[in-house]
Amino acid sequence: MKLRFCLLILTLPFLSLAQTNLRIEPMNWWVGMKNPALQLLIQGNDIKGGTVISKNPKIKIKKVHQADSPNYLFVDLLIDKNLPAGKYPLQVIKNGKVIHEISYALEQRKPHSAERESYSPKDVIYLITPDRFANGDPSNDAAPSMEEPNPNRSHMYGRHGGDLQGIIDRLDYIKEMGFTAIWNMPVVENNQKNESYHGYSITDHYKIDPRFGTNELYKKLSEEAEKRGIKMVWDIILNHIGSNHYFMKDKPFKDWINYNGEFVSTNHVRETQQDPHASKADYKKQVEGWFVPTMPDLNQKNPFLAKYLIQNTIWWIEYGNLGGLRIDTYPYSDRNFANAWTQAVSAEYPKMNMVGEEWSSNPIITSYWQKGKINRNGYVSGLPSLMDFPLQNALSEGLSEPESWGKGLSKIHSVLSNDLVYPNPENLVIFGDNHDMSRFFTQMKNDKALFKMGLSMISTLRGIPQIYYGTEINFSNPNSTEHGEIRKDFYGGWKGDSQDAVKGINLSADEKESQDFVKKLLNWRKGNDAIANGKMTHFAPQNGIYTYFRYSNKSKVMVIVNKNAETKSVEANLYEELLPANAKLKNIYNGQTSTLGKTIEVPAKSVLILEVN
Amino acid sequence: MKLRFCLLILTLPFLSLAQTNLRIEPMNWWVGMKNPALQLLIQGNDIKGGTVISKNPKIKIKKVHQADSPNYLFVDLLIDKNLPAGKYPLQVIKNGKVIHEISYALEQRKPHSAERESYSPKDVIYLITPDRFANGDPSNDAAPSMEEPNPNRSHMYGRHGGDLQGIIDRLDYIKEMGFTAIWNMPVVENNQKNESYHGYSITDHYKIDPRFGTNELYKKLSEEAEKRGIKMVWDIILNHIGSNHYFMKDKPFKDWINYNGEFVSTNHVRETQQDPHASKADYKKQVEGWFVPTMPDLNQKNPFLAKYLIQNTIWWIEYGNLGGLRIDTYPYSDRNFANAWTQAVSAEYPKMNMVGEEWSSNPIITSYWQKGKINRNGYVSGLPSLMDFPLQNALSEGLSEPESWGKGLSKIHSVLSNDLVYPNPENLVIFGDNHDMSRFFTQMKNDKALFKMGLSMISTLRGIPQIYYGTEINFSNPNSTEHGEIRKDFYGGWKGDSQDAVKGINLSADEKESQDFVKKLLNWRKGNDAIANGKMTHFAPQNGIYTYFRYSNKSKVMVIVNKNAETKSVEANLYEELLPANAKLKNIYNGQTSTLGKTIEVPAKSVLILEVN
Repeated sequence: MKLRFCLLILTLPFLSLAQTNLRIEPMNWWVGMKNPALQLLIQGNDIKGGTVISKNPKIKIKKVHQADSPNYLFVDLLIDKNLPAGKYPLQVIKNGKVIHEISYALEQRKPHSAERESYSPKDVIYLITPDRFANGDPSNDAAPSMEEPNPNRSHMYGRHGGDLQGIIDRLDYIKEMGFTAIWNMPVVENNQKNESYHGYSITDHYKIDPRFGTNELYKKLSEEAEKRGIKMVWDIILNHIGSNHYFMKDKPFKDWINYNGEFVSTNHVRETQQDPHASKADYKKQVEGWFVPTMPDLNQKNPFLAKYLIQNTIWWIEYGNLGGLRIDTYPYSDRNFANAWTQAVSAEYPKMNMVGEEWSSNPIITSYWQKGKINRNGYVSGLPSLMDFPLQNALSEGLSEPESWGKGLSKIHSVLSNDLVYPNPENLVIFGDNHDMSRFFTQMKNDKALFKMGLSMISTLRGIPQIYYGTEINFSNPNSTEHGEIRKDFYGGWKGDSQDAVKGINLSADEKESQDFVKKLLNWRKGNDAIANGKMTHFAPQNGIYTYFRYSNKSKVMVIVNKNAETKSVEANLYEELLPANAKLKNIYNGQTSTLGKTIEVPAKSVLILEVN
Repeated sequence: MKLRFCLLILTLPFLSLAQTNLRIEPMNWWVGMKNPALQLLIQGNDIKGGTVISKNPKIKIKKVHQADSPNYLFVDLLIDKNLPAGKYPLQVIKNGKVIHEISYALEQRKPHSAERESYSPKDVIYLITPDRFANGDPSNDAAPSMEEPNPNRSHMYGRHGGDLQGIIDRLDYIKEMGFTAIWNMPVVENNQKNESYHGYSITDHYKIDPRFGTNELYKKLSEEAEKRGIKMVWDIILNHIGSNHYFMKDKPFKDWINYNGEFVSTNHVRETQQDPHASKADYKKQVEGWFVPTMPDLNQKNPFLAKYLIQNTIWWIEYGNLGGLRIDTYPYSDRNFANAWTQAVSAEYPKMNMVGEEWSSNPIITSYWQKGKINRNGYVSGLPSLMDFPLQNALSEGLSEPESWGKGLSKIHSVLSNDLVYPNPENLVIFGDNHDMSRFFTQMKNDKALFKMGLSMISTLRGIPQIYYGTEINFSNPNSTEHGEIRKDFYGGWKGDSQDAVKGINLSADEKESQDFVKKLLNWRKGNDAIANGKMTHFAPQNGIYTYFRYSNKSKVMVIVNKNAETKSVEANLYEELLPANAKLKNIYNGQTSTLGKTIEVPAKSVLILEVN
């Protein structure tokens, strides 16, 4: 925050006192960005009509835009590519007078910042609800400046006190479990009266919520994570803001918020994006309608807002040392803006992975948004990855329901057979649960065997696995599908907790078993080339057996799913196209190696994972 | 059949007596075809080793192919484009001797044969099970030469005696009802012991089954239909034959039948066609596996069989004056052959419509096969139309289930919103039921209102409607989903029937009401340009109301579906993009015209169809 109000107050006698405070966003920028252009939002009382000049010829003021509100200027800068890092003076002039002097910092980028790696099928993402994971710093539980100033751990929708320090404290645990990326729900300021804990009602795009910590602490978390080989994935909300955002108190432009800033509900008919028959009325309502009255819907067709959102993302990547992005409610934003956003991010960080949320079990709809898909209406998205909701739905139903024609394992097989609609199915993020749905253990009807089968599949199918915190210790939501229940506190994150998942205190045998299982599975997965880079070939389920192979030039893995209540003997010659006679098979759980015979025994209700050599 | 055995028996003393009989297929051909090549299958005892010569220089023998069996020759002819129609001599020579003289007929084509029109969205197709529609000629009920020689109307899987004459007799009824095309289940010979009535076990590709009539009678049916503006749609089976086909007694080539002529069941996993992860083993079994032991699966990769099937189709189009094709079990044939077949048919008849059966409710799978779709694996099909099983499934579930999020009318809206995956959704054939599934009235749980709503939608949504015989009079299958029950006898087709749907004798009030409803609807539909050529725009269902428009330059139709149990008043301004203020609205059922006000009243559980002017 040190750069947030970097204003030198002038002592000129003719300067109005009301103009002593400026908001400048982004608060700083970097030299050596690929895009030499930068647009500053400058908010100050009655600043309209002003202009801005630069004292340094290597920072050109290309244009100063007047907003609708009297209190904003938008300033287009062009930064010379040879400009060294430093603080540079800008002046705001109005009516022939300098009314503000600004010292604007352009910092040095981290070496190889542009070429940073992002998450990929090599990784497993740990999804965390920061308020519910661990309270590392009880001193920030209360924040008197906030509309929801006090924690209330007894309420499922209150703030529980989890914070960035809690995550930092548990990085070793996360690493040891085998996770290599963390997607945390948003941690920027949500100064909302109610349910501010979830983070999806941003009230300040550039500031970590004080109840989670500070910008500096986020940076520390990211650096500590990087030391452990863990990438931080930022949760981006392009569609809406919180109703207490400063934008709502003083909109820069009249069209900043959809439906003139008044609540009109979205119809949630996301099919209008794809549908050749969609009415204009339905399309408008889907994109421009709001989720709820406390989440004003942003009109990204406004070019200043579009730039604001794009620069904010780039700022956090650079400042927060990010290793990936996850985009909330992707199809609710203007789709041309969404493409401009992906292109701008990709231009600066060519390897940056971005996964969008399109909650549909229909691959026609999810695949519409994947980069490179040429859609019938001409739309070609720039988004590299989607959350694989179709597979999640198939895993959930397919594992938990009895086998019959078109049901059970066939559902999982079928949904994967739809992969032809994706330009890049390997880059989808796959999962059993997340923060918005029942816990995977609950989906599996508390059946430990099915639960472990699902985790085994998520860890070996094509895609990038994502596991929700607590799922590794059988977290469930037995009483309801309330988000507050689903997002329950991780064991041991609070002083006085009777259980501690990190230290292994008071875990039940089942919880411990699951945790050990996940740890073994993910740590095995880490080094496997077939899983990270390999193709997949599967064999249609028959009699409750579903078999697939992952294979690359370097390694091969055979996975056999047996949903039957008894051990099954599977004929090896069914798989002869991938399973050479006399292959050596290594069971990844117990390390035992055997030579392939005529059959392979697969224990009841389990997934056998075999390295094939 | 007059050309079937057009063999002049030679009196040469050295000619073996065993060689007095030849099968030549096609039995004739036509001059003036676009493709000058023709391949004759000649079957005769011990003909192998022979060659064939033509006495006329305008018929060139390009090549004589020896088969694996001793009893076949395949002869490539090249027919000069200026050859007049006539009978032309060919000689089969073996060991230096003429062993057969053939007089081969090349006939004159009907004028404009190549440019014939086919079914399109202007049409409504009436699907008939010929054995169950009407017994116009009781004299052919028994056929002593057949393996199932006697009719047995008391058995749901016996032959009931329906025939071509029965259809001819009811063409006026079909026309008056508003149907403009007839797709009848196959009528070529099915000389099988059991269940020969359905027609899908062909034992002779070139001969109408004697229990249905003769080739000449089919020609008459087609000509009589044409006089009434009705197109005949032929049901093509490329995948398999009946086990009593002459091919099975003497296979021309060893690889004529998949799996070496031995029964191995298909796995029915049609997804292997699309699936980038499919194993070779699964793909082979899907395509090459058989349906049942009585339906040997054809290996169309054999080029002689491929040509045989292609020429047989062209023969029936030309001989039978066909106006369209329907292809059974489309994805079970070799897909490269399937394309060769569509291309050969399209080359001769550029406007010929062909609809394939791919029984999947997943548009990813059905659309894979539509002409012009560029699939990820590089496959581009040549098939103009698919049966719209996804829409059928959505209509069935969406109408019959209660409204809730993602259910009811939303299902229908959603499936139509997937139309982006089709190159040409307007050319899909849409339907509520067919010969393989429960009657639409049964699907609607015997709810008359829902049933009429469904028929209204099938008649006004994009696509080419198809209605199964008897559905217009509420046919149902209350006791089972047995095909024999579904395919029950049409009323009045048998002497002594107590009811007659054509003459309107003893129909219940409900049956009569439905019949009148369909008649009114289809006859209105006939002349409507918006329905035949128009675009569609729909409005996402809300509160049990689903509205769509069809519109062309010439006309506009508004359709409002109200699934509520009470009359609903719909606000006109929701539709302002297509509904001008003060529009004149004409109710197509009662002919009443009104001027648009602020609202439109839609009666309970009904579909309001309004012409908009």
